[in-house]
Amino acid sequence: MTDAALIAVPGIPDVRPGMSLPDLLVRALDAASLRPAAGDVLVVAQKVVSKAEGCVVDLAEVTPTEEARRLAPEAGKDPRLVEVILRESTRIVRVHAGVLITEHRLGFICANAGVDHSNVGLGPDAVCLLPRDPDASARAIRAAVRAAFGAAIGVIINDSHGRPHREGAVGVCIGAAGLEPLHSLVGRPDRYGYTMRTSIEAVADELAAAATLLQGQCDEGMPAVLIRGIPIAEGEGEARRLLRDPALDLFR
Amino acid sequence: MTDAALIAVPGIPDVRPGMSLPDLLVRALDAASLRPAAGDVLVVAQKVVSKAEGCVVDLAEVTPTEEARRLAPEAGKDPRLVEVILRESTRIVRVHAGVLITEHRLGFICANAGVDHSNVGLGPDAVCLLPRDPDASARAIRAAVRAAFGAAIGVIINDSHGRPHREGAVGVCIGAAGLEPLHSLVGRPDRYGYTMRTSIEAVADELAAAATLLQGQCDEGMPAVLIRGIPIAEGEGEARRLLRDPALDLFR
Repeated sequence: MTDAALIAVPGIPDVRPGMSLPDLLVRALDAASLRPAAGDVLVVAQKVVSKAEGCVVDLAEVTPTEEARRLAPEAGKDPRLVEVILRESTRIVRVHAGVLITEHRLGFICANAGVDHSNVGLGPDAVCLLPRDPDASARAIRAAVRAAFGAAIGVIINDSHGRPHREGAVGVCIGAAGLEPLHSLVGRPDRYGYTMRTSIEAVADELAAAATLLQGQCDEGMPAVLIRGIPIAEGEGEARRLLRDPALDLFR
Repeated sequence: MTDAALIAVPGIPDVRPGMSLPDLLVRALDAASLRPAAGDVLVVAQKVVSKAEGCVVDLAEVTPTEEARRLAPEAGKDPRLVEVILRESTRIVRVHAGVLITEHRLGFICANAGVDHSNVGLGPDAVCLLPRDPDASARAIRAAVRAAFGAAIGVIINDSHGRPHREGAVGVCIGAAGLEPLHSLVGRPDRYGYTMRTSIEAVADELAAAATLLQGQCDEGMPAVLIRGIPIAEGEGEARRLLRDPALDLFR
């Protein structure tokens, strides 16, 4: 029987700036007797990574620029929040009717450059940014798990992004270590011997989406999910490999 | 411990036109002692649904129109294949350098209107179309499982689609029955009491992506995956609810 398991790691405390998330995760895995093994993938929600790394801004300390003040009414947002979003972005993709979509400095095209009020819990004006370098965050978690358990696992930092054409947000990979984010079937035979010509599967995004199903975003939130039993190729990670070159993006 | 399982259903034979896929699935579940229970979700690959329903075209019997002949060189495809793609589409989104992206009659924006050579196995010129009504296909599978096991499950028909902005294809829901494809958190409190304002999660797409991780597309293909342990709201299904109204699509 080919099967896989998604296990929400219990016992992760409320994460505050300055805590070592790799240590917290190792302790929680150990306390739950979840010994990671080679081939497992640990998916960790961006929010707790950002909080541990102190990627939090108090809007009370932000002075909006002229541009942020000008965009705020159309974006339907506090000008100070717009200011923080603009600082995180390389360009504005769209601003309309309460929605502000930008290209984040890491290359992701998403609402509000990933800046978010929810599940921060550090005061009424605290907002969370994406981690400075989510691949590095993933590598640190991977190294801590290897040091504690001797196992080479894959690590994914995930966030929920809206997308063109389809309703609703889905979990996507914004940081990765120890696995190949893309799995190419090009040149391999299908079950009848036909040679596949175009299939490349974004396995890191599919793992990120699967974990999101258990993470939740409300009071029952579980920020880390261990995925076992999915055959994944070891690799360098690098979530930017999941970004399509705009010049080659025919889906836009 | 909060955990979920993804179980690839073993023993599904090579599916041929005219077979009853609901019956094949019930027999395979029974033979594997996988008794579906309320709340389980069965994800079935589009390809076997289409084949069972006879949604297969032999290109030897297709005469391309003038438009198909004109588009074929830029699309890098057999004019007869382009003809089949155009018949399945309501508009051409992009044709360039070997890629043809259209809006399928069901509303999906995807490469080749979902028409595919791989994993068909009905002759060198046989291509597979999407099912005529994937929601109806999902309802038929749901009804057969309920009749055989007495359990009200969710059913998803999935396919792999490329997408704007990000590399690689991911599994998405193209047909659904018995579940709510979207899960709204709007108005609910986060874990610190902050009221969520915008979060809608496309759970059906996340389930479709999770199943794709086990289905494979090559010789080891497993077309049906049973997902257990994910809390999903019962509902009508209707995959078209996952399509974003183009007028409101700020991500494009």
